Amino acid sequence: MKVLRIPEATVSRLSIYSRYLQRLERDGVVTVSSNEIAKGVGVSSAQVRKDLAYFGEFGTRGVGYNVKDLMHYILRILGLTRPWPVVLVGAGNLGTALCTYRGFKDRGFNIVGVFDNDLLKIGKRIQDLEVLPVERIPEVVAEHNVRIGIITVPQSETQGVADILVKAGVNALLTFGPTVVQVPEDVVVRNVDLSIKLEVLTFYLNLRETHPSAWFETNL
Amino acid sequence: MKVLRIPEATVSRLSIYSRYLQRLERDGVVTVSSNEIAKGVGVSSAQVRKDLAYFGEFGTRGVGYNVKDLMHYILRILGLTRPWPVVLVGAGNLGTALCTYRGFKDRGFNIVGVFDNDLLKIGKRIQDLEVLPVERIPEVVAEHNVRIGIITVPQSETQGVADILVKAGVNALLTFGPTVVQVPEDVVVRNVDLSIKLEVLTFYLNLRETHPSAWFETNL
Repeated sequence: MKVLRIPEATVSRLSIYSRYLQRLERDGVVTVSSNEIAKGVGVSSAQVRKDLAYFGEFGTRGVGYNVKDLMHYILRILGLTRPWPVVLVGAGNLGTALCTYRGFKDRGFNIVGVFDNDLLKIGKRIQDLEVLPVERIPEVVAEHNVRIGIITVPQSETQGVADILVKAGVNALLTFGPTVVQVPEDVVVRNVDLSIKLEVLTFYLNLRETHPSAWFETNL
Repeated sequence: MKVLRIPEATVSRLSIYSRYLQRLERDGVVTVSSNEIAKGVGVSSAQVRKDLAYFGEFGTRGVGYNVKDLMHYILRILGLTRPWPVVLVGAGNLGTALCTYRGFKDRGFNIVGVFDNDLLKIGKRIQDLEVLPVERIPEVVAEHNVRIGIITVPQSETQGVADILVKAGVNALLTFGPTVVQVPEDVVVRNVDLSIKLEVLTFYLNLRETHPSAWFETNL
């Protein structure tokens, strides 16, 4: 398996392909073409073939891909053939929303600990979890062998919480908002900045007003 | 201004560059090189030059870019030289978190209406907004000339709410979760699926275990 310099956009699309393949499998579909995958998820079929080619040869010309095999292969690439315990720090509105987000469980992400340093939040229950004080992070991380942490605290506390998680042994972090956290180089960090998504929308709205023909070509 | 077939990743990076330039401007920096921008935001300097080249010639060889000019130019491309009124539908935990998200206001996004169809939520106050019944969407969209809608309702209601917003005149939607909404082709939709971000993390965690040398090359 050759896996060098895979664009991150490819990794994200693999997630999307795997969901589509899961749906096909549930519907009893046995084989699928790159054209069908492309149409099902809204990208070009050349893109589908290019993304899959990073990981070697798939499919049979004229027959297409075996749905089940391709799905399992992609899930294996994404590391999703096993469940992942996750801790979440920051039990405010966003943290609570994420704890109750069904999409995580569906993909094998189990939130095993929720933490906050606010006395009004500690002890509160979110689904079947009790909000614990931040001091208990190391214990829960060790107990469940947690590798992934989600940080939903205010921006000013994000770096401090990242430090605590990394020290406890977590080596993948998902953060929210514009703060760029500093971590050792063996820790993977990805960030969700929701303003950026809105700015993609305004880019297109603006482009459509100023260059209507360019807009129609770009929004494909 | 030639703006054809700009990769969406470029648009997202323009958002990031503009934030960095705003910070430089606040610090009184007058010129900046593509190397400095690259270092400041964590991408390659070739990428910075390539992204900016989509929009024409910038900068002076050996001098770099004028911070203020480049920042304003990017903000203009992103449509951010004016404020954008936004409506949000779904006043649950996620919706409440987004209403109180400071990052939106900082970039000119003003949430002017929050809606829900849950009688327990209607009338509740989130910051200075009162949660209104969904029936009042058309009135608020028309009053504020709203183009952008954020949908944070349960997955099963996402399409219905998208239809209501589009009918009211909204032509850019931000949705959450795996549901793919169907809209007329003059409506722009972007989706935030938080599981996909976690799957990027597990991809790297898995890659590091299975191909340590590949991991170090990829995670740059």
